[in-house]
Amino acid sequence: MSSPGPGLLSLVPFVSVDHMMRIVWDIGLERMLVDLAAYIEEDFRRWEVFDKTPRIPAHSAEGVIELMPTSDGATYGFKYVNGHPKNTAAGRQTVTAFGVLSHVDSGYPMLISEMTILTAMRTAATSAVAARALAPRGARTMAIIGNGAQCEFQALAFKALCGVEAVRLYDIDPKATRKAAANLEGSGLAVVSCASSEEAILGAEIVTTCTADKRNATILTDNMIGAGVHLNAIGGDSPGKTELHPDILLRSDIFVEYAPQTRIEGEIQQLKRDHPVTELWRVLTGQAPGRRDAQQITLFDGVGFAIEDFSALRYIRDHLEGAEHYINLDLLADPDDPRDLYGMLLRHRP
Amino acid sequence: MSSPGPGLLSLVPFVSVDHMMRIVWDIGLERMLVDLAAYIEEDFRRWEVFDKTPRIPAHSAEGVIELMPTSDGATYGFKYVNGHPKNTAAGRQTVTAFGVLSHVDSGYPMLISEMTILTAMRTAATSAVAARALAPRGARTMAIIGNGAQCEFQALAFKALCGVEAVRLYDIDPKATRKAAANLEGSGLAVVSCASSEEAILGAEIVTTCTADKRNATILTDNMIGAGVHLNAIGGDSPGKTELHPDILLRSDIFVEYAPQTRIEGEIQQLKRDHPVTELWRVLTGQAPGRRDAQQITLFDGVGFAIEDFSALRYIRDHLEGAEHYINLDLLADPDDPRDLYGMLLRHRP
Repeated sequence: MSSPGPGLLSLVPFVSVDHMMRIVWDIGLERMLVDLAAYIEEDFRRWEVFDKTPRIPAHSAEGVIELMPTSDGATYGFKYVNGHPKNTAAGRQTVTAFGVLSHVDSGYPMLISEMTILTAMRTAATSAVAARALAPRGARTMAIIGNGAQCEFQALAFKALCGVEAVRLYDIDPKATRKAAANLEGSGLAVVSCASSEEAILGAEIVTTCTADKRNATILTDNMIGAGVHLNAIGGDSPGKTELHPDILLRSDIFVEYAPQTRIEGEIQQLKRDHPVTELWRVLTGQAPGRRDAQQITLFDGVGFAIEDFSALRYIRDHLEGAEHYINLDLLADPDDPRDLYGMLLRHRP
Repeated sequence: MSSPGPGLLSLVPFVSVDHMMRIVWDIGLERMLVDLAAYIEEDFRRWEVFDKTPRIPAHSAEGVIELMPTSDGATYGFKYVNGHPKNTAAGRQTVTAFGVLSHVDSGYPMLISEMTILTAMRTAATSAVAARALAPRGARTMAIIGNGAQCEFQALAFKALCGVEAVRLYDIDPKATRKAAANLEGSGLAVVSCASSEEAILGAEIVTTCTADKRNATILTDNMIGAGVHLNAIGGDSPGKTELHPDILLRSDIFVEYAPQTRIEGEIQQLKRDHPVTELWRVLTGQAPGRRDAQQITLFDGVGFAIEDFSALRYIRDHLEGAEHYINLDLLADPDDPRDLYGMLLRHRP
């Protein structure tokens, strides 16, 4: 893996929001979702080489700020991410994020990047990676319940990666559904706006829940989910924040990213600590079965794991050179003699 | 506490290394050490309001990368810092760092700053805060063993905050001692370069050890430390990295920042888990005695704690306005409708 950017030790490439948008459109959004899925799948397949830890949260009444570190032994990455459901009332994002990639052998950062857009992309790509292994064969219709910031990314990832042709949208706020439907016009997806969750799931082989309420909500009740469906539940992602009625969980085969984190944050926080779940990497490496039959309900209880961010940052790092969609930040002190930090300061005295 | 910088939600003030050097000299280096000590002492006095956790390390054969988060309930901060002793051979710093301060109520970052220089400053300021409570009355001479990047900052902090008038320098590499002595010329300190640790500690009421070797070294042996000395041991700061012979520890009253972290990283990793230590904040708030008599050996087993970085970032944040020693980074996505992240992307399609 090459190291892009400046030769000077003090400089670290920084990808801003504006840069990230240029990168997305240079590559093409659906193409980038496919590429990100490949990077994520590659890293999930070498799961065992990574340092893994549940993310480190700082909870408050208003939300949570989290650090998500991981390392593959050569490269270290972490993401800073917040989750503040009430932010939208003040014109702020519920979730914002940035991330850093570093050299393990020197500890020096090699990339700082916005990750609000990138997290939306990697979350959708991860869902699609899971669905490729778990959704019923030939699924073409997906319901999306919760039409906020993540909705369109999910729709396009499932189109690009899973062959989904139609999405059925529902949100308790019809404005959110109108926004998503308008954005997806011309995407090639057939979009149906629905007036209820019950209507949205009609005929859907895949049901995605991506709501933002920070509470134990019941977006789907047990009687709504029939045999053979794949559930992609990604809105329940912190303690006390779930979307599915526990009876659905008991009827499903449950797949997670990293069980120690998901038991704290995911839908399965509603179940006993020893309820059997399968980590997705084991399916991708062939160590565990994915979908076994057409009747099975599969549930991807996605909460977002550090390795996905690592994969996404690695992808951006690999695509920096040439495009110049970054600036260099003077982030690291670089004295002539590394032990002479004070001397560097002295020589800059006016 | 006011929020500096831009009105736009997407922008976050960034203080580069160059900016930090301008801030240091605008304020004055010794003045800033005194100010930082006041911020650190203020935060140590309200210790109990902070979220505290041992830092989160990623260890490798070459070194360690750590995240150090904390929060006072209104403001959240974290530092990224590495420790790679072999870095100097490649012209890199052993320790580099940057930090972030955020609003707890929204999760939005309010400041990103270099912290290589700032960590050197806060480490020295913290040592001086401890010494003001623990060093023998009237101490005027300090030995500094280990004359690397931290050395001059220690000397100047003890001059500015503790009335130290003379420093006696020793390093296994005479070049390091020459560097430090040259840098401290004109500082107002009497500087004596010594040929051994034994020579350095002659007549010193305060002995600072700040070596960088990542191993269990014995910089000071038991017979070198007489009654009444204050030991400021800050180089032993990760598992397997210590500076003092355990017999010294057994004769000392030991003061630490945050015991759960210091037991992992500090000199006291050589002692039993239940060996009594006193957290410094308890001395500063009058809940525990500092130095009790002239014969006592006091040891500040400093490893660096997240609250000190929080204090330092808070200080920089409070001094941003007016001076303009920062740039604004386009770090956070700021769509017109916060739920319409994809729409923002769409509207930037070329």
